[in-house]
Amino acid sequence: MFTSFMTDALAEAREAAARGEVPVGAVVVTSDGEIIGRGGNQTREHHDITQHAEIVALRQAAQTLGQERLDGCDLYVTLEPCAMCAGAISHARIRRLYFGASDPKSGAVHVGARVFEHAQSHHKPEVISGLQEEECAEVLKVFFAAQRDLGR
Amino acid sequence: MFTSFMTDALAEAREAAARGEVPVGAVVVTSDGEIIGRGGNQTREHHDITQHAEIVALRQAAQTLGQERLDGCDLYVTLEPCAMCAGAISHARIRRLYFGASDPKSGAVHVGARVFEHAQSHHKPEVISGLQEEECAEVLKVFFAAQRDLGR
Repeated sequence: MFTSFMTDALAEAREAAARGEVPVGAVVVTSDGEIIGRGGNQTREHHDITQHAEIVALRQAAQTLGQERLDGCDLYVTLEPCAMCAGAISHARIRRLYFGASDPKSGAVHVGARVFEHAQSHHKPEVISGLQEEECAEVLKVFFAAQRDLGR
Repeated sequence: MFTSFMTDALAEAREAAARGEVPVGAVVVTSDGEIIGRGGNQTREHHDITQHAEIVALRQAAQTLGQERLDGCDLYVTLEPCAMCAGAISHARIRRLYFGASDPKSGAVHVGARVFEHAQSHHKPEVISGLQEEECAEVLKVFFAAQRDLGR
């Protein structure tokens, strides 16, 4: 099976599911291939809508490096980022954004606000989509099917 | 002089300037007129690009209420929100967004990504722009002029 840092992001997504959170996971990787930030959704646990997986991973990476910007670092996330997260990815100067599943409903990279495609976005990462897409989508599908079965 | 909760947001912006941060301030107000979250930019101090004034105020408000969503609450911010903050405002279900100065360079409400104007934004606040606009813009202008004089 093909593996990449997306496998680490998927592990974070599965841990999020186990905590009852929407299973999205992310990791931030330096140009040397070191993971310096990782996380899954934590919005429910912390009553905080900003705690999407990408934001959790970006903040941890910035703390690890002791600097605001993550020039040269890449972000792997299991789902297409929303506008909030795409904006944060741009602010952080992420070099490459790898995402797994597309999110036609709430995404903001290839659909909707298309955050990186405006002059007001001062940094545009290289975007690679569809990485381990089926596996990333499956984790979400299983989670929401179980939620429906529980009547949530 | 006309005053509103924007005056409280301006006070946060001025405190941010005193800390060497870009002077943007925000407050979250309940429908009863109580301020439950407030903050100015803290990105430099905390090495954290997510700590824009809006995010700081939204997170504090959510902690105050002990819930993710701020239905019925309004946000006052001195500058037009960027994509990251507009996304967070939508996620938080803010009822009305009041902003002061427009931000043609980095804004994402009336320019650029226009975050609320897509089907992928599941909540669109009522937007009132230009509130105490000159005062809000002046605080930023003075700050950046001083930065230039310091050669930063």
